[in-house]
Amino acid sequence: MTPNPTAPAIRIEAALDAAITRVSTAESPPQLASALRYAVFPGGARVRPKLCLAVAQACGDDHPAITEAAAAAIEFLHCASLVHDDLPCFDAAATRRGKPSLHMMFGEPLAVLTGDALIVLAFDGLARAGARAPRRLSGLLSALVRGVGMPTGIVAGQAWESEPFTPVETYHRAKTGALFVAATTAGALAAGADPTPWRAVGEQLGGAYQIADDLLDALSAPADCGKPTGQDVALQRPSLVRDLGVHGAYERLKACVASAVAAIPACDGAKGLADLVRAQAMRLTPQELARSAA
Amino acid sequence: MTPNPTAPAIRIEAALDAAITRVSTAESPPQLASALRYAVFPGGARVRPKLCLAVAQACGDDHPAITEAAAAAIEFLHCASLVHDDLPCFDAAATRRGKPSLHMMFGEPLAVLTGDALIVLAFDGLARAGARAPRRLSGLLSALVRGVGMPTGIVAGQAWESEPFTPVETYHRAKTGALFVAATTAGALAAGADPTPWRAVGEQLGGAYQIADDLLDALSAPADCGKPTGQDVALQRPSLVRDLGVHGAYERLKACVASAVAAIPACDGAKGLADLVRAQAMRLTPQELARSAA
Repeated sequence: MTPNPTAPAIRIEAALDAAITRVSTAESPPQLASALRYAVFPGGARVRPKLCLAVAQACGDDHPAITEAAAAAIEFLHCASLVHDDLPCFDAAATRRGKPSLHMMFGEPLAVLTGDALIVLAFDGLARAGARAPRRLSGLLSALVRGVGMPTGIVAGQAWESEPFTPVETYHRAKTGALFVAATTAGALAAGADPTPWRAVGEQLGGAYQIADDLLDALSAPADCGKPTGQDVALQRPSLVRDLGVHGAYERLKACVASAVAAIPACDGAKGLADLVRAQAMRLTPQELARSAA
Repeated sequence: MTPNPTAPAIRIEAALDAAITRVSTAESPPQLASALRYAVFPGGARVRPKLCLAVAQACGDDHPAITEAAAAAIEFLHCASLVHDDLPCFDAAATRRGKPSLHMMFGEPLAVLTGDALIVLAFDGLARAGARAPRRLSGLLSALVRGVGMPTGIVAGQAWESEPFTPVETYHRAKTGALFVAATTAGALAAGADPTPWRAVGEQLGGAYQIADDLLDALSAPADCGKPTGQDVALQRPSLVRDLGVHGAYERLKACVASAVAAIPACDGAKGLADLVRAQAMRLTPQELARSAA
């Protein structure tokens, strides 16, 4: 029997729910409490927290509460970035995950505040869980900070869209790759393992995911992915599909997934993790491409 | 000779500058790096970080790096809230600290991202300094989180402005008081002291500051305080001046300051701290009131 037989998806949903429930008290402003829940549930694929949890499991997962706090923190930071990205001053997206985007539902002020509150909630959960594993806390926090903040996290990635010249690799690494690196390294750190070998796994997966996202944006109808598509061209954002073409981009995606799998260090959970990586990568591929690649 | 003879103001400015310089690298998006600096320098009165540092000094300040990280974190969170509060969807303020507000200077996207990046930077600095004092880190983080997040921190306070009914005490405690409580309790925690007796000091000072802010808003010309005034009436926000009148509000302010001073627990730095509190409270009072009260 493994130490944590509960299915990863259940652990993640429970951790997210518990964190939001904890901060939704009689003293909370009711709409912000509702908006927090709206931003997080129902979720997307939960790719990043699943990856975080899978790495922690591969490294022993000896402190489940801190693993779950790390996985939840990664997802909260991701949801925060989605809510702020959808704002009228950025993508002005009317839908997200198949329903009205948060600012369409709750208004722009609560959308700004929801993103802020989700960032804080990410650190909140880690601080609480970390009280019983203080020597892991600083490293975990730093892994999260690198994934989301300046100079190379999501916020920096988003800020490159306001620059007259955007270096495409730096932009993608920050906007997408950084949180994947945070997910793998935080998974290792939560289990008390050395995060160093897990960086490359996150980097390659982030690269694969960014290409999959560009492909989805270029090829899908909005109904298939629950948000507006064709945005990269419309907003003149760098896109590997534009640079390499559909076929070239898909070849690059497959190479990234292979590199990610090859980078997984020897550990008990290596095979399961490799399977998860391949399954997630396929799931993100537009159906047309998945079929042509079958 | 005291262990930290450097003047508090110098320690605070140096800590803020070092943190921003550290995340402004060759890889940073240049405008976001500039915007971070613009949001933080030149500063206002730095009331909250000075309070944090003064409490830490009163408690021994045996780990100056973590004290400075805590004080800087408090100020970064405060600056983040100012940048987001000034956005068009909230106060739509064109000026702040006597210069164009951040979104007027850098545009709305970078203003949203600057607030986000400042929140992350607050936790970043603590995580770094906390690596060498791991047993203080979790408590410090939780003190910050309570000051800024849900259910009763700044973000919650701001969210009450979107509610049809706003309980005025809850709103003020969250929007203003919470970060003062974070400042006093984080100061104690940074020095390894029990934060409990310091909560009341922060609460009373937060109350005093809120009244001072309401008085400034009601009585000053914009040129005197570097931001638009008359906003409470214009935006129909709760205000103690509206509820109690100018005289009543000023009496309440003085009572809060007296309660804050009375709540300072016995410690070496008690007298210096009481002097600081009184000086800061006077500084925040509109000149007209200060003169009439002299």
